[in-house]
Amino acid sequence: MEEFNASLRFDKRLYSADITGSIAYAKALRKCDLLKENELNLIEEGLENIRSEWQTGMFVIKGGDEDIHTANERRLKELIGADIGGKLHTGRSRNDQVSTDMKIWLRDSLKELLKYMLKLIEVIIKRSLQYTDAIMPGYTHLQRAQPVYFSHWLLSFAFMYQQDCERLIAALDRMNVCPLGSGAISGNPFNIDRDFLAKELGFKSCSMNSMHAVGDRDFVAEFHFWSSLTVIHFSKMAEDLLLFSTKEFSFIEISDSFSTGSSLMPQKKNADSLELIRGKSGRIVGNLTAILVVLKGIPSTFNKDLQEDKEGMFDSFDTMKSLIQVITGAIDTLTLNRNKCIEALSSDMLATDIAYYLVRKGVSFRKTHELAGSVVSTAERLGLEIHNLPLNVFKEISEHFDEDIRLLWNFENSVNQYTVKGGTSKASVLQQINFLKDWLKDNTE
Amino acid sequence: MEEFNASLRFDKRLYSADITGSIAYAKALRKCDLLKENELNLIEEGLENIRSEWQTGMFVIKGGDEDIHTANERRLKELIGADIGGKLHTGRSRNDQVSTDMKIWLRDSLKELLKYMLKLIEVIIKRSLQYTDAIMPGYTHLQRAQPVYFSHWLLSFAFMYQQDCERLIAALDRMNVCPLGSGAISGNPFNIDRDFLAKELGFKSCSMNSMHAVGDRDFVAEFHFWSSLTVIHFSKMAEDLLLFSTKEFSFIEISDSFSTGSSLMPQKKNADSLELIRGKSGRIVGNLTAILVVLKGIPSTFNKDLQEDKEGMFDSFDTMKSLIQVITGAIDTLTLNRNKCIEALSSDMLATDIAYYLVRKGVSFRKTHELAGSVVSTAERLGLEIHNLPLNVFKEISEHFDEDIRLLWNFENSVNQYTVKGGTSKASVLQQINFLKDWLKDNTE
Amino acid sequence: MEEFNASLRFDKRLYSADITGSIAYAKALRKCDLLKENELNLIEEGLENIRSEWQTGMFVIKGGDEDIHTANERRLKELIGADIGGKLHTGRSRNDQVSTDMKIWLRDSLKELLKYMLKLIEVIIKRSLQYTDAIMPGYTHLQRAQPVYFSHWLLSFAFMYQQDCERLIAALDRMNVCPLGSGAISGNPFNIDRDFLAKELGFKSCSMNSMHAVGDRDFVAEFHFWSSLTVIHFSKMAEDLLLFSTKEFSFIEISDSFSTGSSLMPQKKNADSLELIRGKSGRIVGNLTAILVVLKGIPSTFNKDLQEDKEGMFDSFDTMKSLIQVITGAIDTLTLNRNKCIEALSSDMLATDIAYYLVRKGVSFRKTHELAGSVVSTAERLGLEIHNLPLNVFKEISEHFDEDIRLLWNFENSVNQYTVKGGTSKASVLQQINFLKDWLKDNTE
Amino acid sequence: MEEFNASLRFDKRLYSADITGSIAYAKALRKCDLLKENELNLIEEGLENIRSEWQTGMFVIKGGDEDIHTANERRLKELIGADIGGKLHTGRSRNDQVSTDMKIWLRDSLKELLKYMLKLIEVIIKRSLQYTDAIMPGYTHLQRAQPVYFSHWLLSFAFMYQQDCERLIAALDRMNVCPLGSGAISGNPFNIDRDFLAKELGFKSCSMNSMHAVGDRDFVAEFHFWSSLTVIHFSKMAEDLLLFSTKEFSFIEISDSFSTGSSLMPQKKNADSLELIRGKSGRIVGNLTAILVVLKGIPSTFNKDLQEDKEGMFDSFDTMKSLIQVITGAIDTLTLNRNKCIEALSSDMLATDIAYYLVRKGVSFRKTHELAGSVVSTAERLGLEIHNLPLNVFKEISEHFDEDIRLLWNFENSVNQYTVKGGTSKASVLQQINFLKDWLKDNTE
Repeated sequence: MEEFNASLRFDKRLYSADITGSIAYAKALRKCDLLKENELNLIEEGLENIRSEWQTGMFVIKGGDEDIHTANERRLKELIGADIGGKLHTGRSRNDQVSTDMKIWLRDSLKELLKYMLKLIEVIIKRSLQYTDAIMPGYTHLQRAQPVYFSHWLLSFAFMYQQDCERLIAALDRMNVCPLGSGAISGNPFNIDRDFLAKELGFKSCSMNSMHAVGDRDFVAEFHFWSSLTVIHFSKMAEDLLLFSTKEFSFIEISDSFSTGSSLMPQKKNADSLELIRGKSGRIVGNLTAILVVLKGIPSTFNKDLQEDKEGMFDSFDTMKSLIQVITGAIDTLTLNRNKCIEALSSDMLATDIAYYLVRKGVSFRKTHELAGSVVSTAERLGLEIHNLPLNVFKEISEHFDEDIRLLWNFENSVNQYTVKGGTSKASVLQQINFLKDWLKDNTE
Repeated sequence: MEEFNASLRFDKRLYSADITGSIAYAKALRKCDLLKENELNLIEEGLENIRSEWQTGMFVIKGGDEDIHTANERRLKELIGADIGGKLHTGRSRNDQVSTDMKIWLRDSLKELLKYMLKLIEVIIKRSLQYTDAIMPGYTHLQRAQPVYFSHWLLSFAFMYQQDCERLIAALDRMNVCPLGSGAISGNPFNIDRDFLAKELGFKSCSMNSMHAVGDRDFVAEFHFWSSLTVIHFSKMAEDLLLFSTKEFSFIEISDSFSTGSSLMPQKKNADSLELIRGKSGRIVGNLTAILVVLKGIPSTFNKDLQEDKEGMFDSFDTMKSLIQVITGAIDTLTLNRNKCIEALSSDMLATDIAYYLVRKGVSFRKTHELAGSVVSTAERLGLEIHNLPLNVFKEISEHFDEDIRLLWNFENSVNQYTVKGGTSKASVLQQINFLKDWLKDNTE
Repeated sequence: MEEFNASLRFDKRLYSADITGSIAYAKALRKCDLLKENELNLIEEGLENIRSEWQTGMFVIKGGDEDIHTANERRLKELIGADIGGKLHTGRSRNDQVSTDMKIWLRDSLKELLKYMLKLIEVIIKRSLQYTDAIMPGYTHLQRAQPVYFSHWLLSFAFMYQQDCERLIAALDRMNVCPLGSGAISGNPFNIDRDFLAKELGFKSCSMNSMHAVGDRDFVAEFHFWSSLTVIHFSKMAEDLLLFSTKEFSFIEISDSFSTGSSLMPQKKNADSLELIRGKSGRIVGNLTAILVVLKGIPSTFNKDLQEDKEGMFDSFDTMKSLIQVITGAIDTLTLNRNKCIEALSSDMLATDIAYYLVRKGVSFRKTHELAGSVVSTAERLGLEIHNLPLNVFKEISEHFDEDIRLLWNFENSVNQYTVKGGTSKASVLQQINFLKDWLKDNTE
Repeated sequence: MEEFNASLRFDKRLYSADITGSIAYAKALRKCDLLKENELNLIEEGLENIRSEWQTGMFVIKGGDEDIHTANERRLKELIGADIGGKLHTGRSRNDQVSTDMKIWLRDSLKELLKYMLKLIEVIIKRSLQYTDAIMPGYTHLQRAQPVYFSHWLLSFAFMYQQDCERLIAALDRMNVCPLGSGAISGNPFNIDRDFLAKELGFKSCSMNSMHAVGDRDFVAEFHFWSSLTVIHFSKMAEDLLLFSTKEFSFIEISDSFSTGSSLMPQKKNADSLELIRGKSGRIVGNLTAILVVLKGIPSTFNKDLQEDKEGMFDSFDTMKSLIQVITGAIDTLTLNRNKCIEALSSDMLATDIAYYLVRKGVSFRKTHELAGSVVSTAERLGLEIHNLPLNVFKEISEHFDEDIRLLWNFENSVNQYTVKGGTSKASVLQQINFLKDWLKDNTE
């Protein structure tokens, strides 16, 4: 049972946050004279020593240390005596303490993830700039649809990740509220300065209702949702990359450092890293489900169920941290096979352009769509590529076709007609890159 | 197969958003001379007629109407002729169209939910003001912990809901970006004015990458997460209310309009509404899981899998809309049984106060916690309530106890010692109410 | 609130099960003399009339009909009078009634799904027999691995579905236990013959504990898990088929009746049906999550939360019913492009065969794996296909290579070496087909 | 990347299963003369030495050991030389190897869980026998409904767990099929005796299609669903126990070894163990979601995504193993407070009995339900308990009431009228116990 109950095995990762929180709390106790100056100094020194012990792997866990909070307090009492050490918890409960520790830890951890996400966007920008003139088939329904710039495809993910960053920044801001001073449920009876505590710990404000504060784990759930949506984006990018790196597509090659061989088939090179990225979406979404199930239907304030908030949080953090770096590396090192991309363009992908051609001649779009369809099926029937159809065949389909139809058979022209904001023309692609660069600058001081 | 494929059965709810989007698109076509003034007028008039037909239930669905977009367009052609009607879709794809329609619909729907949420907070404030002097046991682990004001408990939920509103407002802002003009994947070739489209449709800006825009369903996922976290809060409140309305607790009575009887047991009165609220968390979290599973691992841009985005969205909206109103009604009409609340207070709930008493006499908290524990167990052993223990028994436990210990046996005093921000003292409760009132005002014009 | 509470909107689908259950209950009441013979006759006749009314769409729903049980009972009283009609519910509670109705409905519905699943396997067998000599690349990690028969690939899904059927049969058997006679929670006080009830309603036995019986929804959860695992299999098959039907693979063509066109791009043909199949996994897994969240942490016996069991059940049934049929149709009508399959075979896919060749010459496998690797990389370096390497190059890599290496360059030979049970040789493929045929026969009377 | 890819950190738990599988495979290689007798002996001996090294903690992990399979093979080559060691993998792939190892491990682990589950049922039977005459209120909707025996309530969970065992036994049987000899995807080319392999490893048969076998993880998903449904049952029992052990109910007391104190409130005793049980449902359901998300939409056969199958499996096993034991211990050691149970019985819980009384006098049930309702409301209006109402008041409500109504005011009589199978009468409770005892005996040799 003790083993079942204990959380030190995993919550020791909070050791530093716990110490930071305790030092701030000691200072606040000093401010309301519940500690003397020398007591505060002893506590602060003792706690910093404990932090060093953890950092250097010297901290010795003992029998009764059921969680990081009791472990640190037990050690503090050993170092500075139980009398003074025993004052640190005055008016504090494990309920407000654990919530504070988690928020400190998660806040700092999410800032780390944000940095990796920004780096990922940076790498996408870099790679996009290298391929501003590489054209490839754009797909919908996994079928060749219209030609696009490779950079346009690449940047479509940068915009997912930019949104992920925006969501992360917003979540960080929302969670940055200090619960310390909420006690077990009813608050702190010594009129401790909670605004001081918040400021000292880098929170933007302090929580407004103690019963709410001690039971609130929304910040954990928000993190899990953020991770889930981000990893779903990763799974989508991994899927595209895996397809593009099949023998059949051959658009890209994943670098050897992100691939492995087969134990049985000597010719194989598998993009394991991308499959793992796709697969790890399961774990992350699972962790989101887990926290929601934990929170569902339990009474308000603190219940021990909440102890199940931590392992999933640590796991999702560790997973996301490596996922972001691996996908960044895979993007950074992939090779584009421009020729294969061009070979994959076929003139039937210009069918929409034929319709647009007729629109520009004044025909109603729904009609032009039909006529362009006739062109496609006629070419198929004759066993010809569209661009090889003689003009008279075009003319039989519609009198609006003329010599200038030949100008359509150019993928670069096709791509560059999409000059609108967000389109795939070179100008728009560069506009996207500039937008992202500015955004990155705004978010990296 | 046709039936399997068709979506009109459910996406007809988008009829008005679809018409609004099409009118804006027609105006933009006019701006780049792809429509003449009279064509625009005919289209606009025709579409408004169709909107009326839907509103009055006069719209007749026909065989080939596979979705709301084709249904509206088919009808438009009937009304104004295929020639002009057929121009409306010029350069537009169902891909950017459907995404635009969904965003218009969801944005307006979420604004509606926000109003109901604000109303809920208002009702909590109103009820809290009615009970500023009602004391009840506060619970942790479902065990009586410390006395609190009933209003403090009630307000703890208002702060969850306020956070829910903040999240909703942020999600609304994030999704308010216009995808129209992204075409199928590559953008619009007629240099259509996308900023105009965005403005016309009330979006704050337009999307920056067409491949991203047509496949993006993050706004749906965000809505589902918002709903999930909110409904988890509802399930928690329902759980508390169900407990408090058992015969055993008897703190509150749920009004008859939110209860029902039993088909077998004549004496029963069941708070069905609250159980349904708790139960409907399943459906909402299920819808979140659903959209994440849909999006996981599919290729980028548009795939038909995305058609699975709508039914869950409609279901969660309908469910949330009624849930918020039902819980508001249940709160608004419940009766508090003040006597039962007071009867449930026992002096062992003042054990922490005993510890605090000793802290104030200079004893270290960890020591006082132990001494207060001795008081509790001594009382138990002697079969007495704590407040009936003779002073000498106290003094045997610690010499710091004195006559003034008697002053502790007052629940109102106990509650009002928590004067700190967020505490359960009357002053703090009123501060919370004022905070929320101000916040409501800031968010209701 | 009434609307929030009412379930008739969806539970009317149980009308027939409810009537069947009530008739059996009336007979049991007759057996313990709580009904007279003529009363039983009137009730039975009345209920059958109501069944006809539902079947013919003549049943008129009235204001107070909150669920199918009250609707049917209200109508019965109208038809035969309240005095006799009012006896039907004697000793019965809506708790045991609803659970019985759901089990009857689900049992019959799952039998229907089972039939469709068996049909699906039948179609796979039929198509497999058509292609027993078509060879294609087998993939792992989406990379060409080893040649296999197309039928072997196809049958790999038949075995998933066979397992799904086995699971379905087992779940059907487990749920086939009758809760009727459990009352609200404590059982039936009139010593009603529950074994008779079970037999009359086609259950294999009756439940053993009334408190368990009225709160048990495990059968719903089992159905949702069954659907989830099955739809995951469908999503996998859809993914393979979507890949195989890309322009890049071109192994198969999905028939027109399972594809659709594009509103913008005239040349497109999209396998929408398969994408929808893949996408609908979200909804099904979402429904599983939903029921588990509903059941989590609620008190035992009946709570109104359980009303959330039905809509998900109906939705998953309807979805699965169409999914199975659509995937069956897609398989039944797809066209295999044998030439494209053969073109996709390259001699590096025989690298394992080279290793096996050397094993047969007595070299240790791990060594042969390395040597075969050298062959692959040497060929790559020389820009040759493996089978075009001169013998002396082979001999430089290992002296064990000899003239007979030429015999390896035959994909049919390669495939047919896997004669082991479950292997891809023609003999094994036929063995698989026979196994499935026998299994089908055993499961279709 | 290497760290990202490697699985040894967690899959080393499969060390023994891997060795067992390899020994069987070596024997099969011997049977087709791919190994000589002395080679087999060396391999077997070497592998057993490696098993000892793992068991005693002496196994030294080296740099290139990416998973348990390569680690064991690397060590084998060190021990007996690369030449002979290198033969072990002949015709085997990591794909069939890992699947075999997992099945061996999971099969044995589930047998262990089954034993704990049977023990849990045993303990419930034991406790039920201790309380065959203790009456308590039975609840629906958390409201007092009808009196039941405490044992009847307790046994309602035994029947959930018995069903869980049935499901576990069935899943065990279904997964017990041997994939070894499936190679990477196409089977084994040396005509290895797969039936021998299956028998040697304790499987009931061998898989029928190699492409199916190497990608199949249904057995993992089945385990996760089993765990999920079981833990949902635990969460329900925990919820009941937590309610019953509140001060307000006070029906039971959880023993000290399953409770803990508070860091702030000296008087608190919290049933942490039960809250953790309830909370751990999140993790388990999360693991189910995770595996389904992993499997969704990935191509058939082996993809690296599948590596995400293991950590969740280990975690759910460890969690379930401790959960079952903790809940068993909590049940085994709880104390029933019979007096509190009896005090909680009130005569309005006999309202249904009043209705039944009138039924026995020949009144239609729906009418009697109404009349009993009048009794309840009349008593309420008069401020009396039902059993204190004078006879004439009864008679005013219905002339069928008579002196013998007094006989109803006896909870023991009330409970014992439910003599039907599954009812709460003492006879039925004993019948349930006997049923379970027989079932346990049938399932424990």
